[in-house]
Amino acid sequence: MRMGNEALLTKLREALGNAAVITDSDVTDSYSRDMMPLAEAGRPLAVVLPSDVDGVQATVRACAEAKVPIVPRGAGSGLSGAANAIDGCVVLVMTKFDRILEIDPANRLAVVQPGVVNLDFRNAVEKHGLFYPPDPASYDWCTIGGNLSTNSGGMCCVKYGVTTDAVLGLEVVLADGSVLRTGRRTVKGVAGYDLAKLFVGSEGTLGVITEATVSLRPLPQAPGTLVAGFDRTEAAGEAVSRVVREGLVPSLMEIMDASSIKAAESYLNTDLGAGSDCQALLLCQSDAGGELAQRELAALEQICLDCGSTMTYATEDLTEGKMLLQARRVVLTALEQYGVWLTDDVCVPRTRIAELIAGCERISEEVGLRIAVVGHAGDGNMHPTIVYAPDSADEFARARRAFDAILEVGLSLGGTVTGEHGVGKIKRDWLAREIGPVGLRVHRQIKQALDPDNLFNPGSMFSPA
Amino acid sequence: MRMGNEALLTKLREALGNAAVITDSDVTDSYSRDMMPLAEAGRPLAVVLPSDVDGVQATVRACAEAKVPIVPRGAGSGLSGAANAIDGCVVLVMTKFDRILEIDPANRLAVVQPGVVNLDFRNAVEKHGLFYPPDPASYDWCTIGGNLSTNSGGMCCVKYGVTTDAVLGLEVVLADGSVLRTGRRTVKGVAGYDLAKLFVGSEGTLGVITEATVSLRPLPQAPGTLVAGFDRTEAAGEAVSRVVREGLVPSLMEIMDASSIKAAESYLNTDLGAGSDCQALLLCQSDAGGELAQRELAALEQICLDCGSTMTYATEDLTEGKMLLQARRVVLTALEQYGVWLTDDVCVPRTRIAELIAGCERISEEVGLRIAVVGHAGDGNMHPTIVYAPDSADEFARARRAFDAILEVGLSLGGTVTGEHGVGKIKRDWLAREIGPVGLRVHRQIKQALDPDNLFNPGSMFSPA
Repeated sequence: MRMGNEALLTKLREALGNAAVITDSDVTDSYSRDMMPLAEAGRPLAVVLPSDVDGVQATVRACAEAKVPIVPRGAGSGLSGAANAIDGCVVLVMTKFDRILEIDPANRLAVVQPGVVNLDFRNAVEKHGLFYPPDPASYDWCTIGGNLSTNSGGMCCVKYGVTTDAVLGLEVVLADGSVLRTGRRTVKGVAGYDLAKLFVGSEGTLGVITEATVSLRPLPQAPGTLVAGFDRTEAAGEAVSRVVREGLVPSLMEIMDASSIKAAESYLNTDLGAGSDCQALLLCQSDAGGELAQRELAALEQICLDCGSTMTYATEDLTEGKMLLQARRVVLTALEQYGVWLTDDVCVPRTRIAELIAGCERISEEVGLRIAVVGHAGDGNMHPTIVYAPDSADEFARARRAFDAILEVGLSLGGTVTGEHGVGKIKRDWLAREIGPVGLRVHRQIKQALDPDNLFNPGSMFSPA
Repeated sequence: MRMGNEALLTKLREALGNAAVITDSDVTDSYSRDMMPLAEAGRPLAVVLPSDVDGVQATVRACAEAKVPIVPRGAGSGLSGAANAIDGCVVLVMTKFDRILEIDPANRLAVVQPGVVNLDFRNAVEKHGLFYPPDPASYDWCTIGGNLSTNSGGMCCVKYGVTTDAVLGLEVVLADGSVLRTGRRTVKGVAGYDLAKLFVGSEGTLGVITEATVSLRPLPQAPGTLVAGFDRTEAAGEAVSRVVREGLVPSLMEIMDASSIKAAESYLNTDLGAGSDCQALLLCQSDAGGELAQRELAALEQICLDCGSTMTYATEDLTEGKMLLQARRVVLTALEQYGVWLTDDVCVPRTRIAELIAGCERISEEVGLRIAVVGHAGDGNMHPTIVYAPDSADEFARARRAFDAILEVGLSLGGTVTGEHGVGKIKRDWLAREIGPVGLRVHRQIKQALDPDNLFNPGSMFSPA
């Protein structure tokens, strides 16, 4: 017999303590959505904040018995609605799992709980001369658990890869409440299926990650920075292709289009030195150190000039480099001068960046809304960001149309509908389209095998069969 | 009704042509096993060599209907028996899928069929200034498909990772004959579960890989080489730990123990210059190029000396470097002076290498057989290799005991029972032990979900429930 809601809450309170089970709707509403305005969000039955694996197991078992869905979440910085509540669900908040359990410099690895904030973890390992690459834009408040669930990227990826590249092993609470320890502490290992990489990026649909063993890298050298302005977007795109083709691997390569540059200049009340005809800025860094960094930056600069850059500026000064990068980092905030923003996430082959930006310009004209494109040029991972008036249902509808139109362009260029933000509750139809019926069937088969009662984050990523 | 064997053969011949369906036992026996002497091998009903996806689909559908198991294989260079035939199975040989479909330097990727030989692929991309890192010891005859199925490594891994790190997308024929295209052509992407990395390393138990899209790297600089001799294994182990701890990333870091050194010296009829008391050699390379390579090699040399190395020798000469590496590469062949060999594969945390070698010395004494340890020191991935007389059942039994005892030591040091060779038909029990009952259950659930009739390589990697 199915447990009633009251019985479930009693059971959760017995297992976790009263303070860890919240039903006050003022509080639970604050845990009901992430940062993606497009996604629907339901009202949870309760929000629970377990602080140990026993608590997670007890929550999973009680919810399984009551047939109440669980939506796991971290800080809620996500941009796909994956962490948004479903009506009547239990939101399982992992932020109390906030300990770094081990840092092992001699094996260059760490064991970390999912509730640790990305920046705190970065800072902790940095004290040992070590580097944890994944650096999503929200790195000062997002958690490692959220990063794992969405396979987060950031600006580091062009040289250092995404979250899954750092994951060695995971501890996961499964749908029946049992604990899976998968992966390893060694650099290499092929004992069985790579389950760890299956759970990474599964957006809370297969289990609850309670611990991660991650590999670390040596701390890179302080980066040198290059800025290059272009009066044609195609020229900037060609520069990116040339950088890839010529075998350069900058530690950062970001792009800003004309709308982004204008927004940042206005917000920072400064002139980025790009000139009024500037259509695109490339920001590059090399963290190779010393002469090698100088050579890398010089080679990047030469490629930009060869491709028609109208302005280049290189600096080894760290503070100046940070200031230049600041222009890229503030774009989303800067866009709030004009309205609220809706950021998209699409990844195209690196040779197609200029075409994507051109597509966004066309869509901007069609829907009559400002669209600023910023992105990780070195990966082809672009974030066209649509600005609309917060109080206009019509503009919101047009923003939504633009959001979809951008994905359409991305797919047509051989890209994917999400490079790093995930599918969540906003791109289910797009996922189905990208992966096709066979891909969708395999997703459902795996979900059914590991979570037969559709307990974890049901309806996120893809709909049940 | 189940199709009879004759009806199955007729169907296969109709679909693939007579020449692609082999039943002559002289020929089929030659396709019945890989390079691992420990593993059992059955006698196949037939060997089929399809040359296109339609042929693979037809084979899978016909075998599914006839309830005849399929063992997919490439060149047969494997060391776990994963490609060994089962009595009455169809061996599905993928070597006719031997085309490189695309090399795209501007996006640094290639699309390749599974039957392409690793070295041919490396050479082809090198012409474009590109580098495909995975370099298993058998790279001059193993195929990309086998590399994908076992998630192959090699000497490159310390700096460049293993096969899965290079895989962007796959085409796979599933158990019902449908074709899954999963993954992408972009550098980043989080659209759905990472199915590509699930199929990589699944040893032919989940589907037949018919195409792979892989990322490539810029071709590294010609490497400089360092050799360091140690009169205590612990000192060599400490040097490896120090290299890791001090943030150095050589492009190669191999270790040879005293038995390996003696065998190589005898086989090559040369003196490696290590001295008669030498207990371990470290071979390191830096492919950073120019001054940086010089600095890296100097730093590596200093660490070795600080840890008590009794002999170091560094060279930037490419030919000399290759000759030095030759000593490492010939060890297995050199051991054939003393008998036949059985090579194990265990990966331990990089701080535990000396303990593993000590354990192997102890086991060697216990079983009364020569055990030579070579390995990828930079990853902790060791290949203790046991030598026994080919005509002695007693020695074979002792070799087998040593093989297991080495895995026992590896696990006790926090390692894994396979770093790169795979589980196959020889380490099923060890896999079960390493991943535990929950891990095993999840493996079975995924296998059941994707291959409900246990069609693909049944009993390899793990036994059915």
